[in-house]
Amino acid sequence: MSRNLPVNASRIADDIDTLAGITEPEHPWTRRAFSPLFLDGRAYIEARMKAAGLETRIDAAGNLIGRRTGRKPWLGTIMIGSHSDTVPDGGRFDGIAGVIAALEVARALVDQNIELDHDLEIVDFLAEEVSIFGVSCIGSRGMTGQLPEAWLSRVSDGRDLAEGIAQVGGRPDVLMQQNRPDIAGFLELHIEQGPVLEAEKEDIGIVTAISGITRIEITVEGRADHAGTTPMDRRADALVAASQLVLDIRNAAAELARTPGHFAATVGEFRIEPNAANVVPSKVVLLIDGRAEIRADMEAFCRWLDGHVEKLAGAYGVMIKTPNRVSDNQPTPGDAGLLSTLEAACERVGAKHRRMASGAGHDTAWIAKVAPAAMIFVPCREGRSHSADEWADNDDIALGAAVLFEAVREMDKS
Amino acid sequence: MSRNLPVNASRIADDIDTLAGITEPEHPWTRRAFSPLFLDGRAYIEARMKAAGLETRIDAAGNLIGRRTGRKPWLGTIMIGSHSDTVPDGGRFDGIAGVIAALEVARALVDQNIELDHDLEIVDFLAEEVSIFGVSCIGSRGMTGQLPEAWLSRVSDGRDLAEGIAQVGGRPDVLMQQNRPDIAGFLELHIEQGPVLEAEKEDIGIVTAISGITRIEITVEGRADHAGTTPMDRRADALVAASQLVLDIRNAAAELARTPGHFAATVGEFRIEPNAANVVPSKVVLLIDGRAEIRADMEAFCRWLDGHVEKLAGAYGVMIKTPNRVSDNQPTPGDAGLLSTLEAACERVGAKHRRMASGAGHDTAWIAKVAPAAMIFVPCREGRSHSADEWADNDDIALGAAVLFEAVREMDKS
Ligand SMILES: NC(=O)NCCC(=O)O
Ligand SMILES: NC(=O)NCCC(=O)O
Repeated sequence: MSRNLPVNASRIADDIDTLAGITEPEHPWTRRAFSPLFLDGRAYIEARMKAAGLETRIDAAGNLIGRRTGRKPWLGTIMIGSHSDTVPDGGRFDGIAGVIAALEVARALVDQNIELDHDLEIVDFLAEEVSIFGVSCIGSRGMTGQLPEAWLSRVSDGRDLAEGIAQVGGRPDVLMQQNRPDIAGFLELHIEQGPVLEAEKEDIGIVTAISGITRIEITVEGRADHAGTTPMDRRADALVAASQLVLDIRNAAAELARTPGHFAATVGEFRIEPNAANVVPSKVVLLIDGRAEIRADMEAFCRWLDGHVEKLAGAYGVMIKTPNRVSDNQPTPGDAGLLSTLEAACERVGAKHRRMASGAGHDTAWIAKVAPAAMIFVPCREGRSHSADEWADNDDIALGAAVLFEAVREMDKS
Repeated sequence: MSRNLPVNASRIADDIDTLAGITEPEHPWTRRAFSPLFLDGRAYIEARMKAAGLETRIDAAGNLIGRRTGRKPWLGTIMIGSHSDTVPDGGRFDGIAGVIAALEVARALVDQNIELDHDLEIVDFLAEEVSIFGVSCIGSRGMTGQLPEAWLSRVSDGRDLAEGIAQVGGRPDVLMQQNRPDIAGFLELHIEQGPVLEAEKEDIGIVTAISGITRIEITVEGRADHAGTTPMDRRADALVAASQLVLDIRNAAAELARTPGHFAATVGEFRIEPNAANVVPSKVVLLIDGRAEIRADMEAFCRWLDGHVEKLAGAYGVMIKTPNRVSDNQPTPGDAGLLSTLEAACERVGAKHRRMASGAGHDTAWIAKVAPAAMIFVPCREGRSHSADEWADNDDIALGAAVLFEAVREMDKS
């Protein structure tokens, strides 16, 4: 790619590659939140922030922030960033691409002697991924007073989340009072984590909405029987009924996916009892992960599911209790003004772009609750993510950073 | 029931109830082979054998045997019995009913001053159930020189199977030379472990064949993807494909079950990877437990399966290697002469009987390899077995013991 960009692509590549080296060698690209490696990664990022002239701090929620004061600080703060923690065995670009792209925007402003009216903050949110404490988006929830207090006492590895946050430099004692009314706007760059941009040869996805995530648990109860002796027509096989359910869920989700708005539903967790070779399965507990850009789709899916499990239970002679929504988040639309700003920025740098929804959850969804916020996606190879195979071309990330740069300049004008 | 039986029903009830009391109190009716409770149970059985005038010993394979010498020992040994070990959390009657019924036959002979020409042996086979060493029918295989030598070094709980056999009084050093050419005939009474006799109001099942057991492992390999972002039509979901396979296996088995001869196939073990809420499943390993009274049925099933997984893999975009037969046993027919003897014995005591196959594996299958052998089933409640709910009415067991008594007397004549 020979575009003349307002950002330095090789600086981005250097930083991402250096951070990729800060990993458990046998488990690339693992840099789990709260681990020593995570702190090593942050030490590198903080040093790079300082080298870019940013003033660094850890906020109460344990977020690493690099700040550059503007000419008219009373206008508020433009915030850009993402997260540097990873899932186990994956995450070479998931999160870190957005942190480094944001850092590069700050550096490019310095290079080009551009001063902003707004304050600018580059943020590395703490623990976006589900961490050892079993919950996600700790930094973005915590920064905005949205972290449920009960989570602070979740224990892992002999310490609770409050201690975990304190150990990375946060202030759990004042966490419940956090609030950021100064944020004028927030932008996050992230890899798409899906195959659409690559397949459609687009450079940038402008994220119209972050899908709501709904997790639904279903328990299918049959009857344990001797697998050798029990005639085929006298069984209440929980696995057979659950298998039918998996297929029906997949078909219902595929149908909703064909209507406007992103929709997906996946049975990812599936536990079977007693799980013994010669016993007819008595119980299956399955967890559905549902994603909907349009809330009505999720409501329709849940209505269908409630009715369907009843019919299924009758047909297979098993018991299925009403599906249990263990968690349920609404979709988060991107700020309309910022979406236009991002589109204009794409045009300015000559990036091919399309609007699209995010199927994954992101820190942006939490910041969007208190300030105008939006995201852009850059392509990743074959849509692979949360895997050691995850890959994004540096040219694509650099182009995204350039869009971010142009958008920040535009936001600064208002 | 007011039949006038040649055996004492209340003595049978007493012994079975006493043994039911020898259990882990929180896990009725657990008396796992090689455990201290198992040895307690055996101590009771041995005492009752001695009280019945039997001479007791532990053979090289760790079987407890009570012996009564006949008038013409050169005619060989009539052997009757079953096993006193249980599955975890079950087995109030599975095995022990047959041991006590056999013991009762010996007592009834004493009561009625009947001397036999043949030697008579009452046997409690060691570890019929899959034990902590992961294999089954140790005593019946071992007694007849059919225990694979490699099994002796299987380790559990810090000792190997050889040590386990030695600890119950066996002789692992001479186990490979075992042989019982003296067995003139073997009979085992067992609960049906299925619902047929109860449903059809029959007293006794004459077991025409013990089904062959074939275990088949199948690995379905898809592709791990982000459950939120990956469009429904771009997935290779191993769980969706495996679910279709479970349903197809069930339907194929149900069809074979409708043709003559017992047939069943069950997916009892099912492991899924990575088993995480927001990841499309990449891999499912499932284990089929197949049972066939008629070998051709199993061959037909396996042929169908090999072809079917190929089609399925294509349709669902996953990889499925050729199903792997991890173990494969032929069906074992009951001895034709003994089946007639048993039918005649049923008629003599007025028991309603039918011929039927055993879907479960039994010690009889191993003894049948070296001597004429057959089994009878008594009804159990709702076909429940390998469960704490397992139940058999004592009157039914007593009637079965009476059939055994009459059959032994008949066998002694030949
Ligand atoms: N971006 C991302 O992968 N977040 C993890 C939470 C989820 O969407 O499942
Ligand atoms: N009789 C019995 O339950 N044996 C256990 C082995 C089997 O048939 O699965």
